[in-house]
Amino acid sequence: MDAGGHPFYRFCRTALEDIRRQGRYRQFTPLARQADNYPLYDQADPVVQPPEGREVVVWSANDYLGMGVDPAVAEAAIAAIRAHGAGAGGTRNIAGTSPLHAELEAELASLHGKEAGLLFVSGYVSNQASLQTILTSMPGWICFSDRQNHASMIAGIKGARGSSCVIFEHNDLADLEAKLAAAPKDAPKLVAFESVYSMDGDISDIAATCALARKYGAMTYLDEVHAVGLYGAQGGGVSERDGVADQVDIIEGTLAKGFGVHGGYVTGSVELIDYLRCAASGFIFTTSLPPSVVAAALASVRLVRKDGWRREKMFERVEAFRARLRAAGVPFMQTPSHIVPIPVGDADRCTEISRRLLSEYGLYATPINYPTVPRGTERLRLTPGPFHTDAMMDEMVAALATLLDVSVNRKVHAAA
Amino acid sequence: MDAGGHPFYRFCRTALEDIRRQGRYRQFTPLARQADNYPLYDQADPVVQPPEGREVVVWSANDYLGMGVDPAVAEAAIAAIRAHGAGAGGTRNIAGTSPLHAELEAELASLHGKEAGLLFVSGYVSNQASLQTILTSMPGWICFSDRQNHASMIAGIKGARGSSCVIFEHNDLADLEAKLAAAPKDAPKLVAFESVYSMDGDISDIAATCALARKYGAMTYLDEVHAVGLYGAQGGGVSERDGVADQVDIIEGTLAKGFGVHGGYVTGSVELIDYLRCAASGFIFTTSLPPSVVAAALASVRLVRKDGWRREKMFERVEAFRARLRAAGVPFMQTPSHIVPIPVGDADRCTEISRRLLSEYGLYATPINYPTVPRGTERLRLTPGPFHTDAMMDEMVAALATLLDVSVNRKVHAAA
Ligand SMILES: Cc1ncc(COP(=O)(O)O)c(C=O)c1O
Ligand SMILES: Cc1ncc(COP(=O)(O)O)c(C=O)c1O
Repeated sequence: MDAGGHPFYRFCRTALEDIRRQGRYRQFTPLARQADNYPLYDQADPVVQPPEGREVVVWSANDYLGMGVDPAVAEAAIAAIRAHGAGAGGTRNIAGTSPLHAELEAELASLHGKEAGLLFVSGYVSNQASLQTILTSMPGWICFSDRQNHASMIAGIKGARGSSCVIFEHNDLADLEAKLAAAPKDAPKLVAFESVYSMDGDISDIAATCALARKYGAMTYLDEVHAVGLYGAQGGGVSERDGVADQVDIIEGTLAKGFGVHGGYVTGSVELIDYLRCAASGFIFTTSLPPSVVAAALASVRLVRKDGWRREKMFERVEAFRARLRAAGVPFMQTPSHIVPIPVGDADRCTEISRRLLSEYGLYATPINYPTVPRGTERLRLTPGPFHTDAMMDEMVAALATLLDVSVNRKVHAAA
Repeated sequence: MDAGGHPFYRFCRTALEDIRRQGRYRQFTPLARQADNYPLYDQADPVVQPPEGREVVVWSANDYLGMGVDPAVAEAAIAAIRAHGAGAGGTRNIAGTSPLHAELEAELASLHGKEAGLLFVSGYVSNQASLQTILTSMPGWICFSDRQNHASMIAGIKGARGSSCVIFEHNDLADLEAKLAAAPKDAPKLVAFESVYSMDGDISDIAATCALARKYGAMTYLDEVHAVGLYGAQGGGVSERDGVADQVDIIEGTLAKGFGVHGGYVTGSVELIDYLRCAASGFIFTTSLPPSVVAAALASVRLVRKDGWRREKMFERVEAFRARLRAAGVPFMQTPSHIVPIPVGDADRCTEISRRLLSEYGLYATPINYPTVPRGTERLRLTPGPFHTDAMMDEMVAALATLLDVSVNRKVHAAA
């Protein structure tokens, strides 16, 4: 084929060279999670030294509470596989709706205090399909989108032909109000934003955003992907913690991070959800989630709602880790959330420190480079969880202190 | 919220009324698959009579070979859950690449005789993300898209801003050639088509389509979603059966139908796949498939490649079913594939026959109405598989003969 010389093959070659030159080439580190020893993983890449078989402590996973390795969650998945098989066997409409799907949708609606919920194959698809469907439903929609919204929301908003998008500055209520006020009064409006922004770890003011939206007659769409399971008395997210879930029209979440399994969802009023169910292409024309995934997610959500200890333990661990970083003089971004970004500020250096953490210390922290974050703000993104021990923390802090050359930093700071 | 009176709530209400009036309201039938007795399911909807607890024979599932209930596939999933937990815990780049992911990608590439493969969370996303990424890579792309292409391909093609789309008549090579010939010579071109079209059950001429594409310098993108596992000596799809896989640039498939699990993929040249891996938003910014799903799919693909008996048995069963329909005078669309559509021709009647099959006979066949198929061509879509017994077939044929009032049909035909 390649010989045929379609220009796309040439394009790919050149694009990949550029990506490599910019230090943006993506190399995945194969890591096999140990269900019995989370956050330990087995490193399986023979290319990176030391080779296969080494145990690695993972510091960047998004299974924040370790629900994916909770025995009750695993057993729920296994029981469902034994009872119903490994896949759903059809779309929701073609024999792919098991009673478990309906049960999980009801559970998620209840979690967020909404009338109804709808499952998607991922959080990405829940955002993309829902936003695109809403914003193409009536003529003239204007979507007000936070500048740092996730790629999946952007995909849905951009995909909505005929609608327009106004980007407001990140978590900037004055800018949002100015833009809402400047928009045509009778255009249907939607404000799309997140609660916890996962790269900077900052948190939006949901109450104030919703109040503004109400003032200007806009609906609100809130991505709680990095908050569900973690915030609020039952893990309903920041909107639960702040007691404002009822002020948000649509709350979206994932089952793959705080809940540790897989899949995404939206919750809202019965009619709104029913409309999405009947109209969203990304919901309709795809095989539904396997019953085992749904059963595991259901078990996880129920556990997380009932037991606060995992959340409490996670926040305790986050604070313990920050205290150690502070004591060692390792710089980190102080955030109001559970996310601990360690600034590095250069793509090559960031990648190199991550590589050395892995090869020299058996510690895994993902480098976050452009385009995920702006150039110059490259970082390692750490997510301490309930199962990171004091010893693991000491190890990571010592490694970071060495690799970031904290003594030098300190001298520089002292001199300045 | 609703009280706030955002016009979208009113819109949803009206839209749903219209959908109901047109007989297009989607009511899912909750069915729990019996892993030990596929294609038997437990019907769990207390609304439809008879209530909960009744066994139903499902005739419309897309787990064509029953791989989702194969004990080896289930055990692979269970072993992976025990070893690695219920979810992946991160995106591919953030600790979400297990060695299983890499192994499955290599296996799929090998299945299609391609250099590389890439996993997505679904077949829908594999089409949407790949096509959108390719068609926005260079300026001026023209996509030649078969009129009956699946919604997921259309989503990717329409989502590719800046590219243009030329629709050619379904499986019409003359029309495709005329349109290729009429397009600007040096624009990058892609021909996007399917092998087995799942609603009509017809099959495209892959060799001839690729020859045309080559003649006009176009790349080819082939959706083998309803063919993988079923056609070709190793289940590599129609492109394998026809010995033309090497002539197709990109072969896309699902793990959720013939392979019975979940997820989607594309295969192609190393550089093309590597580019998608680095550039496709729908691949990058989402939690990777759970290791258990990947392990189950890997076991399924390997079994399906090795053992032809399931494929052979399925085709034998399809022929046995057609023979019975013929003998009973039940009209069906004769297709060159494994799909048996039973024409009904009216949305309400189609829905009503499906409802009566379920409530009176305990048989489930999905009604396929507009917009999935054109109005006037409404149908039941049946997919006999290796585990539909002779007795099940006799039951279904008798029920169809009664509900379709075949005796009346026969008299009309005799009189005409
Ligand atoms: C803010 C945000 N929304 C949505 C998603 C997508 O969720 P999922 O991983 O379930 O596709 C992610 C990350 O993956 C995210 O960070
Ligand atoms: C032709 C075709 N392509 C793609 C898909 C999507 O595959 P998946 O169910 O894995 O999302 C489907 C059906 O669901 C299909 O019929």
